[in-house]
Amino acid sequence: MSLDGAVPWDDRGLTLGDGLFETLLARGGQLVAFEAHLARLVAGCGVLGLPAPEAAAARQACEAALAEAGLGAARAAVRLTLTAGSGGRGLDRPPSLAPRLFATAAAAPRPATPARLAIAATRRNDASPAARLKTLAYLDNILARREAQAAGADEAVMLNTRGEVACAAVANLIWRRDGRLFTPALGCGVLDGIVRRGLLAAARDAGEAIAEVAVGRAALDAADAIVLTNSLVGVRPVDALDGRALQSGELAETLARLVEPLIQGASADPDRLSSPSR
Amino acid sequence: MSLDGAVPWDDRGLTLGDGLFETLLARGGQLVAFEAHLARLVAGCGVLGLPAPEAAAARQACEAALAEAGLGAARAAVRLTLTAGSGGRGLDRPPSLAPRLFATAAAAPRPATPARLAIAATRRNDASPAARLKTLAYLDNILARREAQAAGADEAVMLNTRGEVACAAVANLIWRRDGRLFTPALGCGVLDGIVRRGLLAAARDAGEAIAEVAVGRAALDAADAIVLTNSLVGVRPVDALDGRALQSGELAETLARLVEPLIQGASADPDRLSSPSR
Repeated sequence: MSLDGAVPWDDRGLTLGDGLFETLLARGGQLVAFEAHLARLVAGCGVLGLPAPEAAAARQACEAALAEAGLGAARAAVRLTLTAGSGGRGLDRPPSLAPRLFATAAAAPRPATPARLAIAATRRNDASPAARLKTLAYLDNILARREAQAAGADEAVMLNTRGEVACAAVANLIWRRDGRLFTPALGCGVLDGIVRRGLLAAARDAGEAIAEVAVGRAALDAADAIVLTNSLVGVRPVDALDGRALQSGELAETLARLVEPLIQGASADPDRLSSPSR
Repeated sequence: MSLDGAVPWDDRGLTLGDGLFETLLARGGQLVAFEAHLARLVAGCGVLGLPAPEAAAARQACEAALAEAGLGAARAAVRLTLTAGSGGRGLDRPPSLAPRLFATAAAAPRPATPARLAIAATRRNDASPAARLKTLAYLDNILARREAQAAGADEAVMLNTRGEVACAAVANLIWRRDGRLFTPALGCGVLDGIVRRGLLAAARDAGEAIAEVAVGRAALDAADAIVLTNSLVGVRPVDALDGRALQSGELAETLARLVEPLIQGASADPDRLSSPSR
């Protein structure tokens, strides 16, 4: 058995979801905000009790995947995956861990249309430390996405188990109400998104803070604009929530302009994107 | 790249936890309650929207893994894993799914000691359909187990997000209080365990029903005996909960005697173990 491009049946990422990943944007053959992604992966290793990967190995894996995919200057998604490695039977990790690190790359064109959201019944488990990480145990997000699609939408809003707005299946949420901007607090069970973090900092600098809140779905129902943010898409407008039309294009453009310089300069000033917002 | 004993990097079970598994006991080279395990796997496929595996292929995979492991008549654990197969980038499954099915086997001696339990802070996400399935997204259970071990115990009790007692990290729970028996209801976010199911039926027949309840941890604190049940161990006594000593050996023996005929006869009367308790 060759393990080039594969993991064995006893890999704990495969058998139990024991591991983490990052999804990075690459533009013009360059990784965007690599240091911020790596720092988040390393922090996640601390939470899960896994040895952190070497920065050089992680970067080399991402760059090799990008080169191999032959995407040239196209927008690309690079996925960096860290599993807990091979483990014996059952939940307990073996005494000597040998994590596996690998990367894959694929074209990632910008979505051509705004997102249509539906609120899913499947909840985000804020009562697990995993809710604030990008772990390999992503099934709840798949189930939420499937619910949204069954309802004629293309992305899900996940509430947490207390009924507070948490996030989309693969994005953070920001909304506007009465001229003010809001996003769910990390304590709601939310990934500390790199674009989210950049926007919080940039908006603060611009004198118009985005309030981090723990609120129910009524807050979204009262919003006049909603956007999704993640590393691949940047800022994407939402034009419907459970069938109610929204005009979010202008807000999305404003926020995209705000965060772009931070992302452009991420390599030079990694701390700007790496420091957790709380 | 050979896929004999491995899955490729784009397998959705590996990347996202998109899949299911079953853990079967084998004794004397024979699979115990295969039909009940297969029926549960097939039902789980329905919940996740995955094509169900063929019974013959599933049995053949289990038997081949058992034979290859060369365990002879030893007690063995056979793990049957079904992933959603290779998928494109992102959460959405490809239009044409090709699930992967494989099995592994390992020795599974009975635990030599009673279990020591600790109640974990990581909660069971009863607000996801996945809480009632054995999915590849098992990280919350790993985190709960790690908490229990850090507290000097060897297995975790997971409460659900409403604070109700749900299950252990890899077992169902049954306890005795004032001479009556209780187990968490499936609605608490509990796997419909095959031993649990057999015990519910056998206890009913014996005129001493096990009540399915949704109760907080105070119910466990007031219990005078607690046991864990799963397919590998059968019934295991608990001798401590958060440091409080318990005498559960007699209860464990009584319940083990009750369920053994059902497990012995499982091949002849699969409906007895296959029909959901609710």
